[in-house]
Amino acid sequence: MSTAAFALPQLENPREKCGVFAAWGEPHPARLAYYALYALQHRGQESAGIATTSGRAIERHADMGLVAQVFDTATLARLDAHAHARPGTPGGAIGHNRYSTTGASSRQNAQPFTCFFRHGSMAIGHNGNIVNAAELRLMLEERGHAFNTSSDTEVVLQLIAHCDQGSAADPLGDALSRLRGAFSLVVLYDDRVEVARDPWGWRPLVIGRGPHGGWVAASETVALDVIGATFEREVEPGEIVTLSDAGVRSRRFAPPAERLAHCVFEHVYFASPASTVFGRNVQSSRERMGERLAAESPADADLVVPMPDSGRSAALGFARASGLAYREAIIPNRYVGRTFIKPTGEERSAAVRLKLNIVTEIIAGQRVVVVDDSIVRGTTTRSKMDQLRAAGAREIHLRISCPPIRHPCYFGVDFPDRQQLVAHGREVEQVRQVLGVDSLAFLSLDGLLGAVGADPAAFCTACYSGDYPIDIGTGTSKEALTRGA
Amino acid sequence: MSTAAFALPQLENPREKCGVFAAWGEPHPARLAYYALYALQHRGQESAGIATTSGRAIERHADMGLVAQVFDTATLARLDAHAHARPGTPGGAIGHNRYSTTGASSRQNAQPFTCFFRHGSMAIGHNGNIVNAAELRLMLEERGHAFNTSSDTEVVLQLIAHCDQGSAADPLGDALSRLRGAFSLVVLYDDRVEVARDPWGWRPLVIGRGPHGGWVAASETVALDVIGATFEREVEPGEIVTLSDAGVRSRRFAPPAERLAHCVFEHVYFASPASTVFGRNVQSSRERMGERLAAESPADADLVVPMPDSGRSAALGFARASGLAYREAIIPNRYVGRTFIKPTGEERSAAVRLKLNIVTEIIAGQRVVVVDDSIVRGTTTRSKMDQLRAAGAREIHLRISCPPIRHPCYFGVDFPDRQQLVAHGREVEQVRQVLGVDSLAFLSLDGLLGAVGADPAAFCTACYSGDYPIDIGTGTSKEALTRGA
Amino acid sequence: MSTAAFALPQLENPREKCGVFAAWGEPHPARLAYYALYALQHRGQESAGIATTSGRAIERHADMGLVAQVFDTATLARLDAHAHARPGTPGGAIGHNRYSTTGASSRQNAQPFTCFFRHGSMAIGHNGNIVNAAELRLMLEERGHAFNTSSDTEVVLQLIAHCDQGSAADPLGDALSRLRGAFSLVVLYDDRVEVARDPWGWRPLVIGRGPHGGWVAASETVALDVIGATFEREVEPGEIVTLSDAGVRSRRFAPPAERLAHCVFEHVYFASPASTVFGRNVQSSRERMGERLAAESPADADLVVPMPDSGRSAALGFARASGLAYREAIIPNRYVGRTFIKPTGEERSAAVRLKLNIVTEIIAGQRVVVVDDSIVRGTTTRSKMDQLRAAGAREIHLRISCPPIRHPCYFGVDFPDRQQLVAHGREVEQVRQVLGVDSLAFLSLDGLLGAVGADPAAFCTACYSGDYPIDIGTGTSKEALTRGA
Amino acid sequence: MSTAAFALPQLENPREKCGVFAAWGEPHPARLAYYALYALQHRGQESAGIATTSGRAIERHADMGLVAQVFDTATLARLDAHAHARPGTPGGAIGHNRYSTTGASSRQNAQPFTCFFRHGSMAIGHNGNIVNAAELRLMLEERGHAFNTSSDTEVVLQLIAHCDQGSAADPLGDALSRLRGAFSLVVLYDDRVEVARDPWGWRPLVIGRGPHGGWVAASETVALDVIGATFEREVEPGEIVTLSDAGVRSRRFAPPAERLAHCVFEHVYFASPASTVFGRNVQSSRERMGERLAAESPADADLVVPMPDSGRSAALGFARASGLAYREAIIPNRYVGRTFIKPTGEERSAAVRLKLNIVTEIIAGQRVVVVDDSIVRGTTTRSKMDQLRAAGAREIHLRISCPPIRHPCYFGVDFPDRQQLVAHGREVEQVRQVLGVDSLAFLSLDGLLGAVGADPAAFCTACYSGDYPIDIGTGTSKEALTRGA
Repeated sequence: MSTAAFALPQLENPREKCGVFAAWGEPHPARLAYYALYALQHRGQESAGIATTSGRAIERHADMGLVAQVFDTATLARLDAHAHARPGTPGGAIGHNRYSTTGASSRQNAQPFTCFFRHGSMAIGHNGNIVNAAELRLMLEERGHAFNTSSDTEVVLQLIAHCDQGSAADPLGDALSRLRGAFSLVVLYDDRVEVARDPWGWRPLVIGRGPHGGWVAASETVALDVIGATFEREVEPGEIVTLSDAGVRSRRFAPPAERLAHCVFEHVYFASPASTVFGRNVQSSRERMGERLAAESPADADLVVPMPDSGRSAALGFARASGLAYREAIIPNRYVGRTFIKPTGEERSAAVRLKLNIVTEIIAGQRVVVVDDSIVRGTTTRSKMDQLRAAGAREIHLRISCPPIRHPCYFGVDFPDRQQLVAHGREVEQVRQVLGVDSLAFLSLDGLLGAVGADPAAFCTACYSGDYPIDIGTGTSKEALTRGA
Repeated sequence: MSTAAFALPQLENPREKCGVFAAWGEPHPARLAYYALYALQHRGQESAGIATTSGRAIERHADMGLVAQVFDTATLARLDAHAHARPGTPGGAIGHNRYSTTGASSRQNAQPFTCFFRHGSMAIGHNGNIVNAAELRLMLEERGHAFNTSSDTEVVLQLIAHCDQGSAADPLGDALSRLRGAFSLVVLYDDRVEVARDPWGWRPLVIGRGPHGGWVAASETVALDVIGATFEREVEPGEIVTLSDAGVRSRRFAPPAERLAHCVFEHVYFASPASTVFGRNVQSSRERMGERLAAESPADADLVVPMPDSGRSAALGFARASGLAYREAIIPNRYVGRTFIKPTGEERSAAVRLKLNIVTEIIAGQRVVVVDDSIVRGTTTRSKMDQLRAAGAREIHLRISCPPIRHPCYFGVDFPDRQQLVAHGREVEQVRQVLGVDSLAFLSLDGLLGAVGADPAAFCTACYSGDYPIDIGTGTSKEALTRGA
Repeated sequence: MSTAAFALPQLENPREKCGVFAAWGEPHPARLAYYALYALQHRGQESAGIATTSGRAIERHADMGLVAQVFDTATLARLDAHAHARPGTPGGAIGHNRYSTTGASSRQNAQPFTCFFRHGSMAIGHNGNIVNAAELRLMLEERGHAFNTSSDTEVVLQLIAHCDQGSAADPLGDALSRLRGAFSLVVLYDDRVEVARDPWGWRPLVIGRGPHGGWVAASETVALDVIGATFEREVEPGEIVTLSDAGVRSRRFAPPAERLAHCVFEHVYFASPASTVFGRNVQSSRERMGERLAAESPADADLVVPMPDSGRSAALGFARASGLAYREAIIPNRYVGRTFIKPTGEERSAAVRLKLNIVTEIIAGQRVVVVDDSIVRGTTTRSKMDQLRAAGAREIHLRISCPPIRHPCYFGVDFPDRQQLVAHGREVEQVRQVLGVDSLAFLSLDGLLGAVGADPAAFCTACYSGDYPIDIGTGTSKEALTRGA
Repeated sequence: MSTAAFALPQLENPREKCGVFAAWGEPHPARLAYYALYALQHRGQESAGIATTSGRAIERHADMGLVAQVFDTATLARLDAHAHARPGTPGGAIGHNRYSTTGASSRQNAQPFTCFFRHGSMAIGHNGNIVNAAELRLMLEERGHAFNTSSDTEVVLQLIAHCDQGSAADPLGDALSRLRGAFSLVVLYDDRVEVARDPWGWRPLVIGRGPHGGWVAASETVALDVIGATFEREVEPGEIVTLSDAGVRSRRFAPPAERLAHCVFEHVYFASPASTVFGRNVQSSRERMGERLAAESPADADLVVPMPDSGRSAALGFARASGLAYREAIIPNRYVGRTFIKPTGEERSAAVRLKLNIVTEIIAGQRVVVVDDSIVRGTTTRSKMDQLRAAGAREIHLRISCPPIRHPCYFGVDFPDRQQLVAHGREVEQVRQVLGVDSLAFLSLDGLLGAVGADPAAFCTACYSGDYPIDIGTGTSKEALTRGA
């Protein structure tokens, strides 16, 4: 089925980042990881993996596909049995959902990565993107290292092993202090889990109390909720937290960056509406984005229609603030999945119509405000607008709950090349013409940061502003690591 | 993966009925069927199948799984090539999505069924349930027929062949006039498609103009929209419509029943919100159900929260009519699919929490109206209410946009046994206690029929009222056909 | 893997016929069938199936592939549990290996076929070919029957059901008496197994005592040996044997044909060397064929080399009778299986060389007698002779242990069309030129029948002589049943 | 199918070693490798893999399973397209069949292994066993290396990268000179293939002219024959041969060992009968083993029967030398493959009988000499002897064409632990009693070396004599590398 299939729903959406999870001291750490990864599935749908340690060796299962496809009861039982292979072993595991931002999307790149090294076994899961990965790999190659993959995560893994020579006091800390870029890491050793977050705090990472008294860490709070863990706190930028039989211990491998760089796009699109990210609930942030958008760019219209599912929260806020009627008139087809037979020319419109069905009775003859969360390439947005027009919409006023995306992300969001961004090099009016709507407005950057509500200076907004918190260099890792492939 | 998997999302929901499609005179009838079945996927997710005719023989592909899993480009190309195996062949196909209401759920029961008979080839797809299938099969067995499956659709197929002896004028009409129960049928012959609807009009069936001038038929209008066909009219109760090179012809095998019996549950739950069913748009019907529910059973509360996705339309109507704030605070996990590892005892709550994440910030301390479309067993509703309570809801007022379901359906809806229906033998107050909510109200039957808006006497409401439009007899087909299995 | 794969080893060999098995009164009849079908795998490698009865219903598992691929432990356990679903059920099963001689090779044609009919459940497995199947199907279609497949086995099944009307005394006997052609049948009912053999005795069928006191039937004695059953006797031509709780009972549906027609090709190629077929051990027959061949057509040569594996027995006989040295110099590659990537033009020779490796040290400079069992198309034989020549053989004297095959078989052997038989329309000298050998000789028909040793008049030798034991008619079933497909 | 399956045919046989292949300058190197690996399949059936280089990067496909299962047309086309990604690229590939002697048998251990290192890409395939792999890995771990697998091949790969620091003149030569043990290696770089053989010459490795003027290397000559290449010469012990656009170049990384150690078991069992190994044809060696065995240990018997397939060559020699009749009376079931449903207690005999069918007519009442190539555990040999006895053999005289195997192999043959070898700690008379035969004799070591015919001092016979050519040390690699697992 796969050969001629393509991923219809991903044409327009930015690709998800990864999700990570870790547990120590829980009786069934692999099953815990399974549920947690399910809850984090929105962060990565390409591969899934879990590793457990017996205290002497690591067992791992990872493959391409959704969590539900990669794991079955027998596999989880095997992983959990391994975690308790020796009596009294407290049970440690890490898990990973992946949508790669570097490295080809093949099975061998499915995380966690594992290795044998000087001090036993290690497994590692990574969310983010290491900007200086290519330089680090060149350095390691010069010292006789061989690399198995083109993933920046393997660079991290080998760097940790490399830093572990002689009488190194903190090989992990040494290694992490050499990394530049975004990373939320979970590292499983024979006797502990260590989780760490880059000094800029790009990606979220939280720790909590497990349901049986152990400790857990996860990308988002929604994973804690699902497994019945209680939120303790965020891992701080520049911090390593050790989860072991001795409980929780903290150390720093670097001070927090002077300029923090939380990814604002987590609030706009990535994170679960039910999560609390960087100290704020995501669903509430999104509703406020809609409210501010209504205040900044009102529309003279009959009703507000959300673009499901990602535009619904902001549309609610927009309707509330504007007093316009909120109607569900765009019905998503829940069965349009990852694989879809490539449509021929004339079927392309059928394929688009299939994704979303319009309730003509609601739309026909109306002046409609459509609210969506963001626009990337613009091609599918254009199709959707055409569909609305064909269903009889009299006027279409498109409102987007974040500013125009005009710059690539080097910190874990897989936006397409600059040239493919519809807002790159175009004024809003030009974008409006491309999309064929009667009016178009984006939420302002101030409006966005106000809706998120925290210290505006603590956020990375480079995809809108081009103002990158750190120097990117000439060759970014992404291209550099795969130069030969 | 499959052995220990169970279908989490189906515990509570009534099982979907089938979807049917037919085309004649279109250039790529199999691809057309593919898109149409995708649009009808909500009517059946267990198996999918398409058959095309070369004018001399039928080619068929059907298997367990979703449309996306069953078909690939090569299979569709083979089916379409077969449809045009002889120059000038106009191209005919039928398609079927299935969730069985009779017969075991195995691969050999995937429709369309095909056969060779006296006048060539035949393929058949069926949506509904034949009440007297067991009697008809016994009659045919007495006459030396052998049956391959326990499906009532095979009874229809063999009955058509059986009626085709000697100089029978209308074997199909003869056969259909002997059937009692609900059926919307598509039958593919070597030189035509015939589509038919039972005299009571239980299940929807519409015909339209294909995008290239041919003719199509489908269970719902949403399938016509997706393939770019234009709606012509409903097939009338008791009518056979022939789609062939000669265009559209109609004949009757029976007069419409004196008491029509459109399934009201199509409007409550089954049909796509974007479809027009029995002459009314479904999404609008559902919003009106919510409005009437607010009028009948208001609640002194702070906000209205929909149970996604099926309760959203009615919740919008409820919020509009009541003036209460509409908030999205229950977030469905889109990745919880058909297969799910069976949770152990203590994981059961994790499995429930996984399905829906609660936005605590919105719910905590609030008096909440929760709106859902229907309650069947009540077990998962109870879990969801507990989840809301755990998230801090101060009061929960549950509102259901149809009356209590207290009786089985013999016409194509796979409700569980009477004993498993939470409202069977219980007053509303007793159900409220079972569900653990502060107040509970169902939409009245009059309210429901008013919201649907058509002639109330034209609907079957037996699942609420126990008033069956036709005599069911002692042994219904469902049990009788599988007596030996 | 399958798309571009083709079946390399089957280019030249006649396709195997089917194998059947039946058991009653054994504790694990499905597992018994599994081992028996494994032992009969040489008779059919395309599909495998087993059915068991609970006394009320039949459970069946059948699919494309080898026995080892079709069955696993869980499936056999399920089938055996079904056989003992009711306490005291004695346990009945039938099994089938298939290489179709009529009907397309698809999954739905995998036997056993099952049905529900007037008297409960029935499953049927068939080895042979029904010459008048098309006529019988037309007759049944006229009477309103619908057919699911193009298989002659389904004609037999529906004919049995058809004969079971009113107060029919022996529906099975009635049905079988209408069949013309070759059949060894096993039929599983709710309360018994019935096994039957056509009046001409074309295909073998034997019965034996099961290892736990029950009764079994199988195509060949080798299946009895493997499961630890003891051979009782052959089923006689025209006999039905019932295996039930009452033990073994026999009745006749027809007298033995005046002219019996045991298939001599069973001894030449089909049957296992370890089996006793038509009263004679196969391996011994084949060695005698080689001895007679040496006597009829000696060669002035240095050594005798068998074509593995099918020519080994006759080559041994030839060497023994001729006094020439017997050397193994053609080494088959055991890993060249059913699927093989289609070779490009220049790779064709690599593909041929892969199948057989020549021991150059033994062949080079020698005058070699090569012994094989039969020649069908001649194309791969030609390749093999070229390979020997390239390895340095000075002279090649090809000896074949049966006469030239010049006529199609209508009784269960899937020889290609007449035109593709290399010996059709060619004298032996012409065939020698086609094959490029220094001398060529076939065993005479008298020699062959003498080697098999039984009454020569009891054998069908039509593929050599064209003298068919029964009238074939104008349209044979094979083409007729698939006329429309 | 896999869960409860076990590998019936491998209970008794020593596990096969690996096969390697390399090509440079051929137009379709991946397809060439495919055919070559097919020809070498007898050396490893667990996994298969092929890698090609574009001159800048390596593409690889490897998986568990037979060559036929791992590769399809599309995969080979992709690999060959990669080999010619840049115009004028001459096309290089290596291939590998594996039966691991170290490392777990999982997918990630399927070779070739690939890596990126200081000078580009590298892929490696290995046949043999490195005795000091664990020490080398410890050394590398001390220097900060991380290992992905427990395979000794990865140690070789990382050692090569490690030796490539600063201005190393010959990193490959440096690395190989540090290895102790058996290895025949193929290494693919961006611009060449390098193939090498350990200084003791344990495993075979030959080079030849490709069919289109390029160069190839393979474990056995049979692979050259199949692909139409011409044998040039063996790679010498201690030699590295470079195949590149500049043709063939040779260098030494070590002088040949004073005491060469060709594995005599290649002639006894492993290599293809059609191959020339260490300068002698294998089939002829085996026939001579049988002749010498007849001279050393004659038997007063009626006939000689080979144990198929491995005993056939020696049995022929035995019959020829003894003058006894040679009969094929043990018929192997060609369909008993790798997977087989685990038999219950009483079915064990059925499972054994299934593997081999006895021709009772030939065996009953006879005094039989059975000839086999070797005995390892003895358990299945005992079953086979019992089967012969049950078939009526009057006397059984078992003759084995090599000496008793009493010591483990550390150089690439996966014999079981010492304690499981039936001849370990037992005199021949005791083994005879265990096997239940009337007489038992093994070929003497002198007889074996005489049959192989070359310089006896050039062979490793440690599995018979315990006289290991090099010091093994206390911990062999096999256990040491997997210590933690």
